[in-house]
Amino acid sequence: MNTPSGIITLTTDFGHKDPFVGVMKGSILSRMPECRLVDLSHEIQPHWPAEAGFWLEKSYSYFPAGTLHLAVVDPEVGTERAILIVEADKHIFLAPDNGLLAPILRLGDAKAYQLSQEWLQQQNWPKISSTFHGRDILGPITAEIAAGREFPASLGTQTKDYVPSPVELPERANDSVHGVVITTDHFGNLITNIEASTIASFRTPIAYSGGKRFRFHNNYAQCKPGEYLALVNSFDVVEISRSQASAAEGLGLGRGTPVTVRESTIGH
Amino acid sequence: MNTPSGIITLTTDFGHKDPFVGVMKGSILSRMPECRLVDLSHEIQPHWPAEAGFWLEKSYSYFPAGTLHLAVVDPEVGTERAILIVEADKHIFLAPDNGLLAPILRLGDAKAYQLSQEWLQQQNWPKISSTFHGRDILGPITAEIAAGREFPASLGTQTKDYVPSPVELPERANDSVHGVVITTDHFGNLITNIEASTIASFRTPIAYSGGKRFRFHNNYAQCKPGEYLALVNSFDVVEISRSQASAAEGLGLGRGTPVTVRESTIGH
Amino acid sequence: MNTPSGIITLTTDFGHKDPFVGVMKGSILSRMPECRLVDLSHEIQPHWPAEAGFWLEKSYSYFPAGTLHLAVVDPEVGTERAILIVEADKHIFLAPDNGLLAPILRLGDAKAYQLSQEWLQQQNWPKISSTFHGRDILGPITAEIAAGREFPASLGTQTKDYVPSPVELPERANDSVHGVVITTDHFGNLITNIEASTIASFRTPIAYSGGKRFRFHNNYAQCKPGEYLALVNSFDVVEISRSQASAAEGLGLGRGTPVTVRESTIGH
Repeated sequence: MNTPSGIITLTTDFGHKDPFVGVMKGSILSRMPECRLVDLSHEIQPHWPAEAGFWLEKSYSYFPAGTLHLAVVDPEVGTERAILIVEADKHIFLAPDNGLLAPILRLGDAKAYQLSQEWLQQQNWPKISSTFHGRDILGPITAEIAAGREFPASLGTQTKDYVPSPVELPERANDSVHGVVITTDHFGNLITNIEASTIASFRTPIAYSGGKRFRFHNNYAQCKPGEYLALVNSFDVVEISRSQASAAEGLGLGRGTPVTVRESTIGH
Repeated sequence: MNTPSGIITLTTDFGHKDPFVGVMKGSILSRMPECRLVDLSHEIQPHWPAEAGFWLEKSYSYFPAGTLHLAVVDPEVGTERAILIVEADKHIFLAPDNGLLAPILRLGDAKAYQLSQEWLQQQNWPKISSTFHGRDILGPITAEIAAGREFPASLGTQTKDYVPSPVELPERANDSVHGVVITTDHFGNLITNIEASTIASFRTPIAYSGGKRFRFHNNYAQCKPGEYLALVNSFDVVEISRSQASAAEGLGLGRGTPVTVRESTIGH
Repeated sequence: MNTPSGIITLTTDFGHKDPFVGVMKGSILSRMPECRLVDLSHEIQPHWPAEAGFWLEKSYSYFPAGTLHLAVVDPEVGTERAILIVEADKHIFLAPDNGLLAPILRLGDAKAYQLSQEWLQQQNWPKISSTFHGRDILGPITAEIAAGREFPASLGTQTKDYVPSPVELPERANDSVHGVVITTDHFGNLITNIEASTIASFRTPIAYSGGKRFRFHNNYAQCKPGEYLALVNSFDVVEISRSQASAAEGLGLGRGTPVTVRESTIGH
């Protein structure tokens, strides 16, 4: 494992209204006062782990090797669902075992460990609630790893048996790729799970969604305000956008909408 | 007093739209560049100190002893209202004297100090605005205490004369407790001021609100998506919830709604 | 130039929904792990640089000298638009050259540098996207300056040729000042670009907007809840407010609305 960088990122569906993120930070800082906490997102669609995993896989590499990434979207909290600790590409990821970490588990060198209930029971920790494991279990073990006092392998046993992704990978045919909108961003861009690499061989790709057709451009400013476009965005996936406006609102589309990118049959 | 931990939590109704929280942090960092700032919540219902005090009392113990907690919900800013500095349970709390700190002042060892206007006038501080004391007074004195240059007792005189809570404590009868919804959280859970300890003797508690009846469960996943339930939540108070959905929206209830928990008369 | 304080403030229109701010922080922390990052606002009106520049000029002085202020509101990202680095009043500001920094460039000692494309091409940086220069260019150069490895003058050449403000300065006549609402804050206050100094000579100023007339008060609590007022706020500009309520909602006014402050002709 890489030496911990002292940086911990946080991704949750807790929102910004209540002190849930704050107390989770308190439970981490109580065990590792010198760590650096960075919020990735706390506005993940409640109870939808797929969005958290998507963004995590797209974001982690911008942080130094040895960074810990804690993600809590946990509708089954308090049940027997497991907790996963994953080492991959010199980073460490922690989340409930509900498919959230699927995009990370696809990375070449990923190793998954399932948190041992015995290890947990041996700790002298205060009462663990049945509805807030981010504060009571996941936060504390993240701090223990970040502080170098525990390691993924000291916390549980390696496993290949984990919950699969709630979203299927895009389907690739000869001259088309079929994916879905994973999330709508702050600007109303419809962000899909179609990777740039899967359409790289198309000479003139065209995106189709909601009965409409979108030409690809390199940036938003190539279009007039209000015009729709497709784009390989800065996270290397296809998005459908509207220049200086919200594509999601304008088109009435959102999470789960099918999107197809196809080689154009016109013009060559 | 406990040695300051170097950590300062912030709770306000400033929201996330404007740089109000940021400049308050600037005024703290200008006096103590090495302090650690943690946001508890900046989405307290504007002008409603009761919610801030409720969350503060439920959150502070997750931070190390010696942590300072600054809370600014201040509709009377610029008037003669006092500023309170409270030591309790090895933590320090600062807020306008408007009932916000009532739940902290109920802690066994709480000592309240009223900020001295003379002390304030002796400082060589830049112009103090009449509408932003978080930035101009409360932030700076928090930094002075966190840095160990001032102490609650050096800033004012101890007092027992402070503004009472804007919300009454729940009423406890033989087989029932009557409280209110203090806040609706990000997930739409209706969070009440009814403490778990006050209903611990009930064999089969049932919650009543808005003409409806709610059975208690241990976690959300024990119910089908869409089903309503009552729950002792991870902050040890009663909440009314809806599995994977918003109880507040589904029931049309919110802040201030009366909630009763009663011993069930059926079945034993 | 002042020694960097190690503090970097961030102002964007990225919102809080997605990990855009988080990965920009990651790209900064990867180059300067020990820097202190403070969010000013990430809810700037999308694609409206004027609001970012307004708040930046009103906020920077609450931070220590040597603080870096990175602002990214960048509808023309990916085009030939330049990047500006401005030294002013012992602080450093970085933003796309689109008028955002106009209020900073009006400060007495402001010096503007245009980022050199040659310098950029000489760096051995990973692929630069065409839609996220905050993460790929502006964040990294901010970190390089904050770490003391680069200086404004080492990154480009001084220039006086930059994009002017998208908002005109208020017009001052003998007994009146005509400005506009720059932004509506979290509380619904209508914040104008009319500086306190420009109306200081008026004995009884009255604000006019949307066909209504507003008397000036010193703070919100001088009015009954629901009453409208004008106010010189804590950032020394005129705002139109409503005590314990939203003036913007109540009046149906917002960004861009003309506001006039006039010497009263009644009563002396």
